[in-house]
Amino acid sequence: MPPSTATTSWTLKCTDLPQFDALEAEADLFRTDDKLHLRNLCNNSARCAGLTVVYTTPGHRKIVYDYSRQRVTGETIALLFHLADAVGLAERREAMRTGQRINLTEDRPVLHHVLRMPADFHFVRHDPMAGKEGGAQATDGATTLRNVHEVRERVRDFAERVRSGAYKSVKHKHFRNTIVIGTGGFKIGPQFVADALQADPAAMHGSAGRRLLFLSNMDPVDFSTVVGDLDPAETLVVVVSKTFTAPETILNARTAKTWLVQNMAVGGITENEIVGKHMIGITSNPTLCQKFGIRRENIYMLWDWVNPRFSVCSAAGLLPLSIHFSSEVLSEVLNGAHDMDKHFFHAPLGDNIPVIMGLLGVWNSTFLGYHCRAVLPYSHAMRSFPNFVQHVDMESNGKRVALDGSSLLHRSAEITLGEPGTNVQNVLMQLMHQGRPFPADFIGFMEAQQHIHLENEALSNHDELMSNFFAQPDALAYGKTLVDLIQEGIPEPLREHMVFNGNRPSSSILMTRLDAFAVGQLIAMYEHRTAVQGFIWGINSWDQFGVELGKVLATHIRSQLSASRKTGASVQGFNSSTSSLLEHFLAHGKHPEPTSTEKTL
Amino acid sequence: MPPSTATTSWTLKCTDLPQFDALEAEADLFRTDDKLHLRNLCNNSARCAGLTVVYTTPGHRKIVYDYSRQRVTGETIALLFHLADAVGLAERREAMRTGQRINLTEDRPVLHHVLRMPADFHFVRHDPMAGKEGGAQATDGATTLRNVHEVRERVRDFAERVRSGAYKSVKHKHFRNTIVIGTGGFKIGPQFVADALQADPAAMHGSAGRRLLFLSNMDPVDFSTVVGDLDPAETLVVVVSKTFTAPETILNARTAKTWLVQNMAVGGITENEIVGKHMIGITSNPTLCQKFGIRRENIYMLWDWVNPRFSVCSAAGLLPLSIHFSSEVLSEVLNGAHDMDKHFFHAPLGDNIPVIMGLLGVWNSTFLGYHCRAVLPYSHAMRSFPNFVQHVDMESNGKRVALDGSSLLHRSAEITLGEPGTNVQNVLMQLMHQGRPFPADFIGFMEAQQHIHLENEALSNHDELMSNFFAQPDALAYGKTLVDLIQEGIPEPLREHMVFNGNRPSSSILMTRLDAFAVGQLIAMYEHRTAVQGFIWGINSWDQFGVELGKVLATHIRSQLSASRKTGASVQGFNSSTSSLLEHFLAHGKHPEPTSTEKTL
Repeated sequence: MPPSTATTSWTLKCTDLPQFDALEAEADLFRTDDKLHLRNLCNNSARCAGLTVVYTTPGHRKIVYDYSRQRVTGETIALLFHLADAVGLAERREAMRTGQRINLTEDRPVLHHVLRMPADFHFVRHDPMAGKEGGAQATDGATTLRNVHEVRERVRDFAERVRSGAYKSVKHKHFRNTIVIGTGGFKIGPQFVADALQADPAAMHGSAGRRLLFLSNMDPVDFSTVVGDLDPAETLVVVVSKTFTAPETILNARTAKTWLVQNMAVGGITENEIVGKHMIGITSNPTLCQKFGIRRENIYMLWDWVNPRFSVCSAAGLLPLSIHFSSEVLSEVLNGAHDMDKHFFHAPLGDNIPVIMGLLGVWNSTFLGYHCRAVLPYSHAMRSFPNFVQHVDMESNGKRVALDGSSLLHRSAEITLGEPGTNVQNVLMQLMHQGRPFPADFIGFMEAQQHIHLENEALSNHDELMSNFFAQPDALAYGKTLVDLIQEGIPEPLREHMVFNGNRPSSSILMTRLDAFAVGQLIAMYEHRTAVQGFIWGINSWDQFGVELGKVLATHIRSQLSASRKTGASVQGFNSSTSSLLEHFLAHGKHPEPTSTEKTL
Repeated sequence: MPPSTATTSWTLKCTDLPQFDALEAEADLFRTDDKLHLRNLCNNSARCAGLTVVYTTPGHRKIVYDYSRQRVTGETIALLFHLADAVGLAERREAMRTGQRINLTEDRPVLHHVLRMPADFHFVRHDPMAGKEGGAQATDGATTLRNVHEVRERVRDFAERVRSGAYKSVKHKHFRNTIVIGTGGFKIGPQFVADALQADPAAMHGSAGRRLLFLSNMDPVDFSTVVGDLDPAETLVVVVSKTFTAPETILNARTAKTWLVQNMAVGGITENEIVGKHMIGITSNPTLCQKFGIRRENIYMLWDWVNPRFSVCSAAGLLPLSIHFSSEVLSEVLNGAHDMDKHFFHAPLGDNIPVIMGLLGVWNSTFLGYHCRAVLPYSHAMRSFPNFVQHVDMESNGKRVALDGSSLLHRSAEITLGEPGTNVQNVLMQLMHQGRPFPADFIGFMEAQQHIHLENEALSNHDELMSNFFAQPDALAYGKTLVDLIQEGIPEPLREHMVFNGNRPSSSILMTRLDAFAVGQLIAMYEHRTAVQGFIWGINSWDQFGVELGKVLATHIRSQLSASRKTGASVQGFNSSTSSLLEHFLAHGKHPEPTSTEKTL
């Protein structure tokens, strides 16, 4: 594995730097000096004015990123940028942009930004480092971009044929339902986009009369719930798996295949025809995919550098979402993501939203010691966004070692949680205000996707919602003191129960409207925030060895269950607790009580 | 506020007790002694055998609660029970059971267990403490139970009339859709039950042809998404609010009323008739509810002691769920909850599942210092359970002071997160294994709600799913060492990236099947776990003052928005950051671009 490039030493550790120590000293101040309580900081207009970025894109769209309610001063921010400089953040970012193999453990580049580049975008024609001493072998940018656009063209063409009805089912029906079978990012990213645009006027127009469903869990209840009352003759099944061996995905794919075939293999229609027409594969392993029965022309490529959690702009997300909403809508998603990519890769660090977000993440986690952070979109359409961020961030940065394999001297990724809109006020706010504190990103929009304004109401429903978006950050920052409560005449025994310590940090992200373009911006913004934290921490955000061990152990259990079910083999080779649980499980299975709905597909 | 009762001093603090110090010393051992790594503890069969409870209920149902993968020894458990004894856990539990006013700040009893008692249950005929010196005034148990059953009878009767079609809409149609409007627990509890039973054969039979939807978020997108293509002439709207003033609920109720009236007030049908037939109120404030237009006979009582987060067994959950699934199914939910109530209130502490769960929560949080915990149901039907537990636990125990108002010397509630089934493996497992550790409850079932076994597959889909349920806890506990990796021949530069430290604690809960009875058991089990932690910590788990401040500030914002929208009033009275955000928001609103879908209801 190449340990370094000419531009940045990947093994340089933030904890070895004097800039790290300076930030630790700064954090100590925040722990001890009451003048640094947010109640005081937020009343300083000069300070606050410096802690907002207003990012404008063509079409009069704005992203107002206000981080004045974070526990920072201008000095703190300066120290964070010193650390970023010392670590070589700009160089690490540039290595990502130019396709160097920064995923060192898997020896791959990280190129999800290429997935959303326009075909004529001036990318990297050749690797400036290639051949130089110690230089990592980079990707040929032009070839990569051309490959991406070949798949995009095929996706566009297929999606339009499905949407127009030119591509019909074996029963000569239009395909109205699309089921995506895939785990992790193959489900979570597209699910976020689908929910976010469900009530967007342009996207609604595109999806009229169509259904898009996701099947991810190995539990047969997920299959039954998703399939529900769908007509198989109108249903397309998109199977997404890089290796085409992911157990959940392949089991669900076989179950879906059986469901399609059992319902349609009549009147001379063969299994081959059904699978050939109704099933699409998105994979890096076309051979296995064809062996499964999917036709060569219905297979779309995932390159080895496509990581599932950063794959929403690859064919994995693009194909089902284009069928559902139209290629025009998805082009806008890609344009929005590309817009944010350009901002991330080219804007100066001090005006760079994902960079500031990432540095604040490091500040809150590594220096102030918060364990969690919340994503709180005041938008019902964004209800799946917390899960998306959770997946992108926790799987990328939940790591134990630095790039060189040495143990980290600080904790890595925080726990992400979140809830949409006013719902959050009933789930998280009690604890956020009066229990253990954690920072939050509030996300709101100036315009509603759906406008409702009742007669005789002072405000539209969206204004009512947004009142909460504007109020909660200050409530968290300022809190409520004993003196306030005395002045309000609260009886003595209740007062302490009603004190809010305040000093709970948050950022506010106010965007113009939630449409396809904004969805793309949000995806890229949070993807890059995660990258920034990984770059500062010096970890590999791009691998995920931590998910493997459980899978290996599951195969031992699987063999045991199979042997016990078939031959009554006794439970062996596990510790006593696991053996005992397995025995309880198998003992019950020995006397199954078939129910009326039992079926063997 | 009565500070104490004859049986337990509510102001006694766990941190003042020598038993607390003993546990701190015990936790120090776990931090330093490698023999106490779970890898070693789990190989000790004698230890493990003592760390499982098998709870059997009539009908051959089992709950196997295996906590052998928690970082405890028999000695730790003994120390936890010493603390419980010293705090007076059994007495505090008994004070709850017998209806003493243990919600001291609000001067109310805590009686959600009464909601699921059979009518003839031998409850508390009179308060043993009433009139005694220092005794809190308890509720008259017999009267409370009679009132509960009066409402249950009315709910049953109404639900059956709706289901049979005897109660028809103003358009003389059967009511097939039920929309529940309510926030927090009024939505989260019933939503969990609805999802959990969606694929249960008995419940599916009851809900055939019916839809149950929840509307909770103030965002107009939630309303648009929920209403979707529903026929108002077949739709019943159940509005749940204790005060009938909760802003989100009342705004959504008004929006729903407008939707019903605008769609049906033709041919001489009046608004009064529509609201009278189509809207139901569940409230403590029947006066306001009637003023809204809901008929007296369509109002169901919520007593002041019904806390929304413990309300799923009150009319708030019972009415919509009985309409959807049938009263028989809901009776089973109540029976299951009552079964677990009896277990909690009467089983010896050492065999008591919610008690052990709560003590382990205290151990992990207060002594071992974990900040989060996960609920991981290996069951797609349980997908809403993590949110339910999050709400119940974090809003109850996310507190800053003890019952007497003194600041806690330890942190209170942990952050709860979770994800169903194999989905969790792609969202949380990387971080759980290799990032910051936190404990987890794995929940699995011996039987599937839906049986799928493909031909030529060794195992049923449910067995495949459960293989993961059995494997992950050991993967977390044991981890994988450098020696293991060397033996496997992993190249040196990759090894450290593939090391799993292990020692991640978890409990495994294996239940017979997920049906209505089990749903009730699970609700009560986790409600009581939260109560136990609150009792040990000496906090009031039953109030929620922490949610109020944000609501107050939102009213200031609302006034500003209203003034600015109507008269162009400038933004005043906020700090500079909030003023600036509001100005961005209002500036955009000044030039709205009406879209084709814009509507003024």
